[in-house]
Amino acid sequence: MASLSAAAASSADSADACAKVIDGKLVAKQIREEIAIEIAKMKDAIGVVPGLAVILVGSRKDSQTYVRNKKKACEAVGIKSYEVNLPEDTSEDEVLKHIATFNGDPSVHGILVQLPLPHHMNDENILNAVSIEKDVDGFHPLNIGRLAMQGRDPFFVPCTPKGCMELLHRYGVEIKGKRAVVIGRSNIVGMPAALLLQKANATVSIVHSKTKNPEEITRQADIVIAAVGVANLVRGSWIKPGASIIDVGINPVDDPESPRGYRLVGDVCYEEASKVAGAITPVPGGVGPMTIAMLLSNTLESAKRIHNFK
Amino acid sequence: MASLSAAAASSADSADACAKVIDGKLVAKQIREEIAIEIAKMKDAIGVVPGLAVILVGSRKDSQTYVRNKKKACEAVGIKSYEVNLPEDTSEDEVLKHIATFNGDPSVHGILVQLPLPHHMNDENILNAVSIEKDVDGFHPLNIGRLAMQGRDPFFVPCTPKGCMELLHRYGVEIKGKRAVVIGRSNIVGMPAALLLQKANATVSIVHSKTKNPEEITRQADIVIAAVGVANLVRGSWIKPGASIIDVGINPVDDPESPRGYRLVGDVCYEEASKVAGAITPVPGGVGPMTIAMLLSNTLESAKRIHNFK
Repeated sequence: MASLSAAAASSADSADACAKVIDGKLVAKQIREEIAIEIAKMKDAIGVVPGLAVILVGSRKDSQTYVRNKKKACEAVGIKSYEVNLPEDTSEDEVLKHIATFNGDPSVHGILVQLPLPHHMNDENILNAVSIEKDVDGFHPLNIGRLAMQGRDPFFVPCTPKGCMELLHRYGVEIKGKRAVVIGRSNIVGMPAALLLQKANATVSIVHSKTKNPEEITRQADIVIAAVGVANLVRGSWIKPGASIIDVGINPVDDPESPRGYRLVGDVCYEEASKVAGAITPVPGGVGPMTIAMLLSNTLESAKRIHNFK
Repeated sequence: MASLSAAAASSADSADACAKVIDGKLVAKQIREEIAIEIAKMKDAIGVVPGLAVILVGSRKDSQTYVRNKKKACEAVGIKSYEVNLPEDTSEDEVLKHIATFNGDPSVHGILVQLPLPHHMNDENILNAVSIEKDVDGFHPLNIGRLAMQGRDPFFVPCTPKGCMELLHRYGVEIKGKRAVVIGRSNIVGMPAALLLQKANATVSIVHSKTKNPEEITRQADIVIAAVGVANLVRGSWIKPGASIIDVGINPVDDPESPRGYRLVGDVCYEEASKVAGAITPVPGGVGPMTIAMLLSNTLESAKRIHNFK
């Protein structure tokens, strides 16, 4: 897309860097605007606004911040948010009761249980209790199975991998027939990202901690999605010239010059990679802003499906 | 395993061939014997024998043969088989009613709906109706999702990919840290085979019809599972010297010298591949006999789980 390419070129931060910068912050903003317009139309046409319920157990500062940010993002696009805050020592049954209430509430179209849950709870039991039609995180195994299968479609695509694909699409990166390497195989990013690339007809390889020659394999890839959580693991020498690099990692590294004493870097050594790659996401400002945008997108999609609004 | 290696060496059919022959017929026989012993023990201990129900709709000759073979294999190991034969014009509701009956029948531990179903039926509706605890084919998306996810286990591993893995295990082929290429991405073989290899810590790439350089990628693999249904697609030049090759293909090719006018060949050109590979399955007599053995294994596993028999 011409407008995105221009924006990317102007934000490249070094004369050395030849890679186009894939600006997740900009794309996420565009998507939020598109969502706000669709929600306004839906409200006008059928009088319904999407609703997202978030259940937070305990008082972890980081979880509270995530939940607050999700709530703000919902409000900005016109999604009604519902929040339940439960104390750390809440019983599993109590949480399940709240999920059941939201499952049955027609004004709620998406339900999120903020992770991590306290240790005395069984994550699997709790996540499986969320109605498959409202599982906007897309983590239910039934959903993952449908993602893996040809001829089936998931109810929801997990937010972070969906954000990665959206960045590739909006920057016009061709996927069909291309070699793709996903570094990391987590249930929430690496594995579903590999399934999505495969569904888009890439030839996909998954590199993980037991892989003996990750550099050699990664260097064959036209598209790399790095989601392993190791700062600067992917060096310039790992990258095929011209490849498109999506960096999901957000790793704090010590930095005495930063006021906080640390800064955030990706799984990819940006300085080196941006000299070899054709396009690359920065950290922060790449995949990060896309995750919440995709959560809003999934919530809207759910409301449209439930109310059969096209 | 020493005994298998010896058997394999003696069945190699050409002086040229250096590859060990992975004898699926022999392994399947051993597994059926192991299953028969376990079933006898179970019957003695708790008075229960595993039960497998097969639903056949219509009168396709090939489906009738498959069903008859499954029934015979069940009887040989002590699994009680239940069969329902319905005419071609049966309604979907009628099939669903039979599935519901078997779902509720405590003497049935596995339910198979023989595919393909008549065109007027929706495969997805019918397969999804089989109780996840009795889905011995392992094709339910919930099951595939659990197969894909780390930290989750499927109720059942689909029979043919399970057979491929069993052959690799019984011939002592190391999987962890090895490069594996799966050729083909079908829901019933290629995709679940890739997930199983990945769960066993191989570095997996999936090659398919949109892959531009299948030969180059396949030649990097220590383990190849070919399941694409194209006769002799994989030539000797595709194979890394010493690699282990599992050939799932069963393709008829014209052969005027054969009494039937055709013979069966795999997706791998056996004559060429056996000179390069370290180990290879023949066609027929490789993966084929393993599929029914694994169906018996899944049915036994189900009965053990339902009756909590270890």
